[in-house]
Amino acid sequence: MRDVAIIGAGCTRFGEMWERSFRDIVVEAGVQAIRDARLSGKEIEALFVGNMSGGRFVNQEHIGSLIADFIGLAQEKHIPATRVEAACASGGLALRTAIMAVASGYHDIAVAAGVEKMTDVETGVTVDALASAADREWEGFVGATFPALYAMIARLHMHRYGTTREQLAAVAVKNHHNAVHNPRAQFRNEITADTVINSSMVADPLTLFDCSPITDGAAAVIVAPAEMAKEYTDSPIYVLGAGQATDTISLHSRQDICTLGATVAAGRWAYAMAGVTPRDIDLVEVHDCFTIAEILAIEDLGFFKKGRGGPATLAGDTALDGKIPVNTSGGLKACGHPVGATGIKQAVECVEQLRGVAGKRQVKGAEIAMTHNVGGTGGTAVCHIFSNGRRK
Amino acid sequence: MRDVAIIGAGCTRFGEMWERSFRDIVVEAGVQAIRDARLSGKEIEALFVGNMSGGRFVNQEHIGSLIADFIGLAQEKHIPATRVEAACASGGLALRTAIMAVASGYHDIAVAAGVEKMTDVETGVTVDALASAADREWEGFVGATFPALYAMIARLHMHRYGTTREQLAAVAVKNHHNAVHNPRAQFRNEITADTVINSSMVADPLTLFDCSPITDGAAAVIVAPAEMAKEYTDSPIYVLGAGQATDTISLHSRQDICTLGATVAAGRWAYAMAGVTPRDIDLVEVHDCFTIAEILAIEDLGFFKKGRGGPATLAGDTALDGKIPVNTSGGLKACGHPVGATGIKQAVECVEQLRGVAGKRQVKGAEIAMTHNVGGTGGTAVCHIFSNGRRK
Repeated sequence: MRDVAIIGAGCTRFGEMWERSFRDIVVEAGVQAIRDARLSGKEIEALFVGNMSGGRFVNQEHIGSLIADFIGLAQEKHIPATRVEAACASGGLALRTAIMAVASGYHDIAVAAGVEKMTDVETGVTVDALASAADREWEGFVGATFPALYAMIARLHMHRYGTTREQLAAVAVKNHHNAVHNPRAQFRNEITADTVINSSMVADPLTLFDCSPITDGAAAVIVAPAEMAKEYTDSPIYVLGAGQATDTISLHSRQDICTLGATVAAGRWAYAMAGVTPRDIDLVEVHDCFTIAEILAIEDLGFFKKGRGGPATLAGDTALDGKIPVNTSGGLKACGHPVGATGIKQAVECVEQLRGVAGKRQVKGAEIAMTHNVGGTGGTAVCHIFSNGRRK
Repeated sequence: MRDVAIIGAGCTRFGEMWERSFRDIVVEAGVQAIRDARLSGKEIEALFVGNMSGGRFVNQEHIGSLIADFIGLAQEKHIPATRVEAACASGGLALRTAIMAVASGYHDIAVAAGVEKMTDVETGVTVDALASAADREWEGFVGATFPALYAMIARLHMHRYGTTREQLAAVAVKNHHNAVHNPRAQFRNEITADTVINSSMVADPLTLFDCSPITDGAAAVIVAPAEMAKEYTDSPIYVLGAGQATDTISLHSRQDICTLGATVAAGRWAYAMAGVTPRDIDLVEVHDCFTIAEILAIEDLGFFKKGRGGPATLAGDTALDGKIPVNTSGGLKACGHPVGATGIKQAVECVEQLRGVAGKRQVKGAEIAMTHNVGGTGGTAVCHIFSNGRRK
């Protein structure tokens, strides 16, 4: 198994882009990544793309072929292009699959991309498409949409551990604060806990500002064998660990809905492969599709004991200058959540942090960074751990 | 890179299964494959599943988590599960991705499955979902459905090479003949050229019997490192070669629509990896979504010169006892075409042929077999070459 590194990264602005098409935005991200890696397109041997529901959002499947075509690598190069999907974890899967393809020796230079164009359809279609990430027969058909499912988790977490409304709100406040310094973010405005708590109710206790938005966006990274990385870039980002796991797709089948078993397993596998512990991680991008999801994540990944995620967030432990900076990009909440792109955007944020080019949101001296991407209510989780090579 | 073998295979009956659900049929195929490999489920480390459009056909994405859950490997084992998609080539992609995962050393025992449940929605939804495999903006929006696109190819092939209506019909007649001996096939009845030519017009020159049907079905194979294969089975099937390629997603962008560039590239890469030529292949399962597609395939894979596929088919060269038996399973035309499952079903057919257990459709002395799976009108193609180890 060969070691793998990221040699280039690109990401569009996230937001509502009614004037741009699905294929436009993914090409923009891909070209950014290719330029960043100082590659010629001809050196690219394979493409892996995460996309949740092109079929519902833009009436287009066969995304791999489409993208290979529009980046100009289908007609003569005929590069293999594979779409992978695990709902909102599709981007993380694309990265892990690309890493395996390079690790195996099947390919040297591969693109891992993620894309979702969500704002071109009416809200009912969007809600129903997103509900297809949950168990359609046991959840969707009875009206359990995503906010409702996460609201049930939040209620139990509050009941069992004393997590408060203010602690949930603190996640959103922090992530909006971080996004102010991220030029790609969908929402670059500070908010207060009052804004969160007094915004429209979505699914009690979650209000509008507890929820990540509907977003268009695309992101891409280039992966290569670690031993070749320095030929392309002075600042390769090494993949130390990659873990992917499943859990039951529906909440009612789980022993405990306050712990996402897939997050625990994916994190454990990634830590083991990387040979690190949570204490070694300098920053982490976690899957905050709802504020409660960030609290689950920082507990399930071992940064805080179960039940302590809320108090730690309110105390500032997850802020940019806290013990473990969480979602320096602004997270799904404020950077935006184009579902298939999110897992790759998390990696792009880690690349910029580990290169030390994250500007005002830079975590000083960051050497090891982690991503955590979730599909559905935890039916899938994918974690990656990256290093800039300054510490091994 | 480790060598990889198939150690177990399973496949449901193909057809209209209104009484069974998506999750039922994929579990049936998976359990068959697991039993065939004499595995306990606990030994399985990863799942890759090909599915084109669960979002449109059964309102369900996040297929990987769903299947891992329903085969009982999500809750405690938390195995990683990845859905891959490239329209009708999704099954072939799932197999190649699973092979890479095992070759890389990331996993030892992996399931590659394919599934599609297509008959539960009205025909308009089906046609539109299938059209999402083509370029929605440049083909679908102007009414070019799949039969229309392949009809254009057929017209040019007839004009340029003198391919006749009878030669096209001979593909369907042969594939129905083979399917009579396949207990899984959707259509197990002999037909004549008259039946094909006089059936309802779909898109001139293609009539109803030139077209593969709408089908429910699922298939699965178990892949493992070649050096471990004999621990599980006395008849491992070795993967000699795997090739995957893209071409432009739309027909109008191609230099020549009578050749599928993706098929040529995927075939060439698979032959090179396997160290064989078309002459070494004892049987091939090709992607005959329409009769013209089988003629393109046997030409583009190098079994016959361009333009000679039609005459060769009419002369019986591709029959069970011909020079190169093509689609012994009955192909997409008669075995049926549950789009995400087809690529895996092709591999299951090769496994049975190479084990010598294909009954009345057995190709005598078969040692090397090949599959060819296409997405859209050739935007993607995937080829695999297998051996039973009796010849190297």
